[in-house]
Amino acid sequence: MSEPAPAIILVRPQLSQNIGTTARAMLNCGLTDLRLVAPRDGWLDERALAACSGADALLHGARIFATTSEAVADLTRVWATTGRNRYMTKAVQTPRVAALDMRESVAAGMGVGVLFGPERTGLENDDVVLADTVLNVPLNPDYCSLNLAQAVLLIGYEWFQAGQGEPKAFDMSKGGWGRPATKEELLNLFTHLERELDACGFLRHQEKRPSMVRNIRNMFQRAGLTAQEIRTLHGMITELVTRRRRDVEPGSDDGRKLEDQ
Amino acid sequence: MSEPAPAIILVRPQLSQNIGTTARAMLNCGLTDLRLVAPRDGWLDERALAACSGADALLHGARIFATTSEAVADLTRVWATTGRNRYMTKAVQTPRVAALDMRESVAAGMGVGVLFGPERTGLENDDVVLADTVLNVPLNPDYCSLNLAQAVLLIGYEWFQAGQGEPKAFDMSKGGWGRPATKEELLNLFTHLERELDACGFLRHQEKRPSMVRNIRNMFQRAGLTAQEIRTLHGMITELVTRRRRDVEPGSDDGRKLEDQ
Repeated sequence: MSEPAPAIILVRPQLSQNIGTTARAMLNCGLTDLRLVAPRDGWLDERALAACSGADALLHGARIFATTSEAVADLTRVWATTGRNRYMTKAVQTPRVAALDMRESVAAGMGVGVLFGPERTGLENDDVVLADTVLNVPLNPDYCSLNLAQAVLLIGYEWFQAGQGEPKAFDMSKGGWGRPATKEELLNLFTHLERELDACGFLRHQEKRPSMVRNIRNMFQRAGLTAQEIRTLHGMITELVTRRRRDVEPGSDDGRKLEDQ
Repeated sequence: MSEPAPAIILVRPQLSQNIGTTARAMLNCGLTDLRLVAPRDGWLDERALAACSGADALLHGARIFATTSEAVADLTRVWATTGRNRYMTKAVQTPRVAALDMRESVAAGMGVGVLFGPERTGLENDDVVLADTVLNVPLNPDYCSLNLAQAVLLIGYEWFQAGQGEPKAFDMSKGGWGRPATKEELLNLFTHLERELDACGFLRHQEKRPSMVRNIRNMFQRAGLTAQEIRTLHGMITELVTRRRRDVEPGSDDGRKLEDQ
């Protein structure tokens, strides 16, 4: 519908009423791309429809995904809303600054989206790590319990306000930066890297594995990789370990010597 | 409670739940002066208390007035929120501009307040005329049905942001995110990585080597790595290639199998 705008991605929303009020807040701000990750069965109920106050089309058009990874796969820039400190090294923006950033990204043809966590618990670290940037809304530090739809409203409001002025031109294709990677390309890189790190034993401590994987993903996430850079990293990983495989397969020795041993 | 801030004045609110969510939105933004003009009997009910999500003190402290005139009597500057054109000659402001104005007025010792009308009908002209300035929230012109508490939130949000001053620069060294790596640490990582990429043959094309090395360095440079992350990357590289070495050194087989072949 209409011009490109950020996707709103509700991760495991608990209350159908909140999905309805979120749809209403989105439409207030001209946002229409609603995505739900693993919502409860029967989420599209009377409460959701009553709460959306006429924004029914957004609810009926919502796309459902089993995982957050799948929900962000086609996007290039992703923000994660969170009030808590995640002890991750990741850029943090206010909605106002983020909105300018989103406008620039969308103007450059990128798909962008914002992740919102479940009402009580917020996003899990494994979800946050899929984002490029953390969104933190500056509000009363002594009472920052923000309703889901209200958090969506504030982000959407800033998005809308940022479009009221002159949109700045931003061309990432200049300067040889290349096309930014989609999240799917990035996730494929993670899969490749983690498979090899499992194989070589780097991730052998099962209890530490989840946090190690998050930290590693976070580093590469933060680099804002291009599609070409992703291909380079795939190549690096493959060559770093392929030689090992050739060396251990019987009869596969191609006669080259290991240069540095 | 705390520093002087605008009063939120709900004129003839219809739903007790909306009074509750308004209290919540107010407290989010550090606002505590809630005034109700001719609310329905029994407005302070279970729905209001459930919806206020812990902001009970605002509901219990709300002041009740019979008329809008009485509710604004002690104030010096009053804004009226309305989406409709009132055909009145009156200044119109966006919440962002109004917030600066409110801050100035409060700093000058004036009492300020914002009028919000009943959910379905909005403010009557007789209420609007009591205000100095009309507040108009720039949102989707095709769908501007804004919930009462959400309208309050947007005004309160701008009030809060106007008090924040310049957005603070994000300080990576705080909050346990780890110390950013020195350039020496980063260069040591580059040396390690490039040595291994030479060894496995990834950088075997001598004419392309300089630009490949630059591109690879650039990716990691851009990630803004911490000292801890640099250590993790050293470990990853070492383990990815160590296994290879163990496998090819005569008698070095430790009996483990390669898991992924």
